[in-house]
Amino acid sequence: MGNMVRWEPDSRGRLEQAALALYGERGFENTTVAEIAERAGLTERTFFRHFADKREVLFGGAGGLQELMVGAVADAPAATSPINAVMAAVVAAGDLLQERRDFARRRQAVIVANAELRERELIKMATLASALADALRGRGVHEPAASLTAEAGVAVFRVAFERWVEAPDPSDLPSFMRASFDELKAVTSGE
Amino acid sequence: MGNMVRWEPDSRGRLEQAALALYGERGFENTTVAEIAERAGLTERTFFRHFADKREVLFGGAGGLQELMVGAVADAPAATSPINAVMAAVVAAGDLLQERRDFARRRQAVIVANAELRERELIKMATLASALADALRGRGVHEPAASLTAEAGVAVFRVAFERWVEAPDPSDLPSFMRASFDELKAVTSGE
Repeated sequence: MGNMVRWEPDSRGRLEQAALALYGERGFENTTVAEIAERAGLTERTFFRHFADKREVLFGGAGGLQELMVGAVADAPAATSPINAVMAAVVAAGDLLQERRDFARRRQAVIVANAELRERELIKMATLASALADALRGRGVHEPAASLTAEAGVAVFRVAFERWVEAPDPSDLPSFMRASFDELKAVTSGE
Repeated sequence: MGNMVRWEPDSRGRLEQAALALYGERGFENTTVAEIAERAGLTERTFFRHFADKREVLFGGAGGLQELMVGAVADAPAATSPINAVMAAVVAAGDLLQERRDFARRRQAVIVANAELRERELIKMATLASALADALRGRGVHEPAASLTAEAGVAVFRVAFERWVEAPDPSDLPSFMRASFDELKAVTSGE
């Protein structure tokens, strides 16, 4: 450290951009934290102030997303049906991710290319489904309805998200989610 | 090897029993192949004739189960709706697993106790959902209906299986699956 500690505006965002660029160019497994920091024009120390490791750049947002979704289920009006409470949570997540489409697209490409990251993503989704089922039980929903509703919500979330990420034009994620939910209703009713 | 090669009746079944007993007693991670073979009264060589490694004792059946389910989707009559084709696959899997309830129960307890095995199980379930979605697309089902139907089927499968494994009496797995499917229909229709 020199005499003066410079304040780096949006160092977290710069590190994210640098990491995604490098993961895309040379693969997640072949990128080091030192390289990410260098690309961002920052130090490794700064990297570790924002992220525990290079995987955290990709998964650091999952906790906040889950908290938002669990909160949406818990806060839905008492008269709301379980599936509509979960849908409110999924759409709330869509509103948030919508703001970060470029990040979401590039992140998805990195994850699809790496088996270990795909596994980590599956674990995050399973954890999310458990947390949503818990939140539904907290609303008095019994089993197996709570687990099935939560799993259905996560399936809608994932399928809609993947279609949105691959869509050529930057369409509206919450509307992909509503369409995916309507499709699930149609398929389960046997149409 | 001695002068005489003894034929060991059901050595595969004995190795499975020994492995599950040891995994339950001391944990999957603390059990060696040598110990499994010894408990079964067989040699390590015999173990490796049946299983690639100690994890294979738990996951060796997944490929056959997936093949059975994909076949059931592909072979469903042309007029069968996508969700009913997937349900036929789920119930076919239930018929098979039903025969092995004791193995399924003990296997589940081992998997729940070990993070690495839980991840492996998640991966198998995601692979199964992909394979079922493929089989539906082979029947002319478009996206996102194919993926959503497959995910819904796997959710029904998992939730019903977990309830059946935990049930105090050895009830009929296919009927758990049909009940779970009816429940999914009820929750997605917002009841």
